[in-house]
Amino acid sequence: MNSSIVLAISGAAALLFAFILAKSITAQPSGNERMKEIAGYIEQGAMAFLRREYRYLTVFIVVVSVIIGRFINVPTAICFVVGSVFSILAGYFGMKVAVKSNVRTAEAAKHSQQSALKVAFSGGAVMGMSVVGLGVIGLGLLAIIFNLNAYYLTGFGLGASSIALFARVGGGIYTKAADVGADLVGKLEAGIPEDDPRNPAVIADNVGDNVGDVAGMGADLFESYVGSIISAITLGAAAFNNNKGIVFPMILSAVGVVASIIGAIVVRTSKAENPQKALNIGTYISGILMIIGAAVVGYTTFGDFKGFSAIAAGLIVGLLIGKITEIYTSADYKSVKEVARQAETGSATTIISGLAVGMKSTMWPIILIAVGILFSYFVMGGNTDPTLGLYGIALAAVGMLSTTGLVVSVDAYGPIADNAGGIAEMASLPHSVREVTDKLDSVGNTTAAIGKGFAIGSAALTALALFAAYAQAVDIKIIDLLAPTTLVGVLIGAMLPFLYGALTMESVGRAAHEMVEEVRRQFKEIPGIMEGKATPEYATCIDISTTAALREMVLPGVLAIVIPLGVGILLGPEALGGLIGGAIATGVLVAILMANAGAAWDNSKKYIESGAHGGRNSEAHKAGIVGDTVGDPFKDTAGPAMNILIKLMTIVSLVFAPIILKFGGILLNLFK
Amino acid sequence: MNSSIVLAISGAAALLFAFILAKSITAQPSGNERMKEIAGYIEQGAMAFLRREYRYLTVFIVVVSVIIGRFINVPTAICFVVGSVFSILAGYFGMKVAVKSNVRTAEAAKHSQQSALKVAFSGGAVMGMSVVGLGVIGLGLLAIIFNLNAYYLTGFGLGASSIALFARVGGGIYTKAADVGADLVGKLEAGIPEDDPRNPAVIADNVGDNVGDVAGMGADLFESYVGSIISAITLGAAAFNNNKGIVFPMILSAVGVVASIIGAIVVRTSKAENPQKALNIGTYISGILMIIGAAVVGYTTFGDFKGFSAIAAGLIVGLLIGKITEIYTSADYKSVKEVARQAETGSATTIISGLAVGMKSTMWPIILIAVGILFSYFVMGGNTDPTLGLYGIALAAVGMLSTTGLVVSVDAYGPIADNAGGIAEMASLPHSVREVTDKLDSVGNTTAAIGKGFAIGSAALTALALFAAYAQAVDIKIIDLLAPTTLVGVLIGAMLPFLYGALTMESVGRAAHEMVEEVRRQFKEIPGIMEGKATPEYATCIDISTTAALREMVLPGVLAIVIPLGVGILLGPEALGGLIGGAIATGVLVAILMANAGAAWDNSKKYIESGAHGGRNSEAHKAGIVGDTVGDPFKDTAGPAMNILIKLMTIVSLVFAPIILKFGGILLNLFK
Repeated sequence: MNSSIVLAISGAAALLFAFILAKSITAQPSGNERMKEIAGYIEQGAMAFLRREYRYLTVFIVVVSVIIGRFINVPTAICFVVGSVFSILAGYFGMKVAVKSNVRTAEAAKHSQQSALKVAFSGGAVMGMSVVGLGVIGLGLLAIIFNLNAYYLTGFGLGASSIALFARVGGGIYTKAADVGADLVGKLEAGIPEDDPRNPAVIADNVGDNVGDVAGMGADLFESYVGSIISAITLGAAAFNNNKGIVFPMILSAVGVVASIIGAIVVRTSKAENPQKALNIGTYISGILMIIGAAVVGYTTFGDFKGFSAIAAGLIVGLLIGKITEIYTSADYKSVKEVARQAETGSATTIISGLAVGMKSTMWPIILIAVGILFSYFVMGGNTDPTLGLYGIALAAVGMLSTTGLVVSVDAYGPIADNAGGIAEMASLPHSVREVTDKLDSVGNTTAAIGKGFAIGSAALTALALFAAYAQAVDIKIIDLLAPTTLVGVLIGAMLPFLYGALTMESVGRAAHEMVEEVRRQFKEIPGIMEGKATPEYATCIDISTTAALREMVLPGVLAIVIPLGVGILLGPEALGGLIGGAIATGVLVAILMANAGAAWDNSKKYIESGAHGGRNSEAHKAGIVGDTVGDPFKDTAGPAMNILIKLMTIVSLVFAPIILKFGGILLNLFK
Repeated sequence: MNSSIVLAISGAAALLFAFILAKSITAQPSGNERMKEIAGYIEQGAMAFLRREYRYLTVFIVVVSVIIGRFINVPTAICFVVGSVFSILAGYFGMKVAVKSNVRTAEAAKHSQQSALKVAFSGGAVMGMSVVGLGVIGLGLLAIIFNLNAYYLTGFGLGASSIALFARVGGGIYTKAADVGADLVGKLEAGIPEDDPRNPAVIADNVGDNVGDVAGMGADLFESYVGSIISAITLGAAAFNNNKGIVFPMILSAVGVVASIIGAIVVRTSKAENPQKALNIGTYISGILMIIGAAVVGYTTFGDFKGFSAIAAGLIVGLLIGKITEIYTSADYKSVKEVARQAETGSATTIISGLAVGMKSTMWPIILIAVGILFSYFVMGGNTDPTLGLYGIALAAVGMLSTTGLVVSVDAYGPIADNAGGIAEMASLPHSVREVTDKLDSVGNTTAAIGKGFAIGSAALTALALFAAYAQAVDIKIIDLLAPTTLVGVLIGAMLPFLYGALTMESVGRAAHEMVEEVRRQFKEIPGIMEGKATPEYATCIDISTTAALREMVLPGVLAIVIPLGVGILLGPEALGGLIGGAIATGVLVAILMANAGAAWDNSKKYIESGAHGGRNSEAHKAGIVGDTVGDPFKDTAGPAMNILIKLMTIVSLVFAPIILKFGGILLNLFK
């Protein structure tokens, strides 16, 4: 019980810190009238999307909570509602402040890079601290109310997962529909530059950065964060006959929140010239604090360093995956340079080499995850007690995600800096401002790629931990790969990420097509638009992205819920276990492939733009643009959707385990 | 014993039929001097490749057979040598006749489409009949010699798999290096048409069709064919305490050989105007004969229709997968049309939509395979005796592959028709000849796509059956997905197809690059080459493709053998089981994705060329060419390599099961 209170208090501290940061941001000047006008459009667009989304969400939450309350139990339904609402709140706070930070970052960039970094990072940190703060307060309070009942808490995870689906998949479709639509007509047909206020889709594009990259990423990691803690609590309850297994991850998460806050303060007060360096110092300091804290808490709780070792393994694997992501996606290394070189022989070789980079880049993350699994399982004592071993895997996930507060802060800073650059461009601010924001943005691209790698790795580990918790919940000790039902489950599960990828990419295509039509219409029908005398109808483009995002999200969302339940009920809990296992395996692979291929194309295009292989407007550059355009839905829509898919399906299985246990396998009865 | 004799006799019949066909082909006129000259180049090039390949193979076979003889046992080593040699012989016969058939097809096309079809199909049928004939003779004789010892026969499967690796992966690299290299310089730089004799890489390109599409495909299906029979024999021996479980698949295969011969005769004597119709009639007749035969043999053997049902399920699933492949890859259906439509907005949207088609197209084949697995498992009685159920899955694989003789015949006909068209072009034959060969070739494209779908489906089912046989061999009753070692095995296994895809695509890139350099050199250094006065040095281009194919094949080959053994020895037989399961799941998915995306791009380009979206030389056409070029290594190199990877890894595990059983899991001992 005390641990729940400690957890809730650490969350309160994070929220307080977020509040102080938000106040400090709104106190900053927000520039001239033109800047305020543009920022106002973006803010209105973002809020318009949120309002529409909330209408859908309300219906969804009511329906699902009634189903859970009726068929599972009421406490789980309550936890579900709280989880949903808290995830929504985290996204709301984060976005509300992000859209205020962007214009203030642009204004601060007039004075110095350091002050611009401070504003942008603070804006990101509001998202980061809201995510962890609301996550642990929610878990802490519900743990107190429901007396540490691990199963009820899974409802909280399901709530978080459901909102993540809307935020991440819907957000991904929103942002790429706007981006691709704006580029296809604006850049290619009308020949106007990026971030040009004459382009009707430009505000939607900027809103999309916030919707997809801030709120979407935040909800994704909120889900992983609370999911990892929930799985550790569930397995901890089963592995120990005292409550140490529950206390440890809770206290540890509290330590992680504090380490994140300190890391964020370090970044904010850093005097480093290079923004990357400032972010790195904060990351390393919070990592070191976390390691020390985990050793102390682990030893105090268990009297040995086993739990600590599992935590440390997760933390280290997370950092290494980030580093590997950088190696495959940064222009400082050979993969991106090779893609750029292949651009010399045209689009086809650019595509092939980018895909090859993406495919190759799956190897090390998988090996690292594999080592992390084996180490954390066996170090915790899995060879004598499998439940202890699975608990070790859950701890590795908790460890990897312990500094989520800082990870999200660093990650969300990127789109804010990007938006600041857009505002600077649209408000015709001096070139020096754009230089500062470009520098911040380019650092943001690297942190975004690393953040994606981290999001994938943590989603994998969280899903595996939840998978173990699922097996615990349906009380199956063995999921036999030689049983045909399991095998079939694995095959179908492995196929789902491919289907998901196709569906989300097609959604972007359809939505972008509508956007193209609308932008063309406005160029034709609004007189004076191209001379900058008339204001384009930004709102209709925002509306198209919003409508498309919410519409196109329905099918993937329904599939992620219906398929696991359907397979479980038709073919039984082992088949569902196989389905989850297969989906995690290919989901992680496709996510890595798409994220890294996308980032490699993006950065190889930028590398060419920096002067290599003929520079801008060369044939290589054209091929690079093709690669980048293919990579857009890869890295920002379909790829991230995989994280959601695997976690959502797993937690759906976990929450509905009682139903599956009761009715599972009705199809098999035909043969009996 | 009697069943082995029946099997061997059916094989002898197939070989006799192949011999008659080969005689009938060589009796045909081979055209004018120019045609003979060109055909001579192709024949010499193909034989040069084979000779070089055989040198490598001899070393490989000697080394591996010594290892098997030393560490496993001598009979298995003998079976390995026989399997290798028989696969080589099938490829040799098939290719020898294919390169004779192409020029004779071109000559026959002067007279009528029907006679051209007859020659081309007969050429393909020599390959088809050689595959099944040598397959069943080998199995039959070895079964007699080693007194139906199922385990020894796995060596035969390993031999077949090893040669398939060389033929399919090496062949895939050969053909695409030549194709891409010829296109990049010839079409794009020098502006000369396809199949122009002035292009130094043109003969290598034509040789590649035979090396990759005839010999490669043949070896791939030879492997699946014998693999399915071996797994059925292995599991049949375990499932029954009499020899019915062994006799049934043997007799059935003999029936399949006869059904294939009859089907081939029907095609040859068909009077149908449309070549597709002639091929379809033959396919349906052999399918119907097979169903009837299976019912009779099944009932006679077991006294019920259980075994028959499993066989029929496999056969039907195979046909349906072929049909689905057609739906996603033929211009008669909406997917290809949609890709063509997306070509209007450029290369990027073409690539995205093609990838989406490929990803989506994985769904139905996986569901069909899943249904096939469940049905054949349970219909055979798997719910009471799991070994019987696994035997049912093996029977489904045998059923699917029973008419392999005809499938390979239909499939190998395509590249012969394609080559005939190339010879007609190079020898400046009348336009009407090219029209006939184009018609035959376009039917060949569809049959090739269907054949690829069939090859993937059968590889999946064969690998699963071999997987079950592996579990039998290492005597594990359960492969628990909740054990961390299994989970790690699944993750690593699932990753391997991605790694393999990256490696093979990069190989094609490197080899094509060398080819480009050489063609450029010849255009520059050989005077009169562009005026058609000097003959290009075809042999050096052939040499480049040959060297590259053999060199680039080493790493993928080594990985496919070392990784399963390494994982088995380090992490134990369950981890290896997980690895195989994971590799099969993603291997099948990636194979389907690549084959269908590649074919969809190819056919959408052809659809545009037929006049849609602006026709030839439109912007859409350029985008279509980009898609087709990306698709080339997809569908002809990386995709087919997946079939080999999953089967080879599985049979390596099966053959080396005693070693893994003895030494497996040494890394885990560290934690004990």
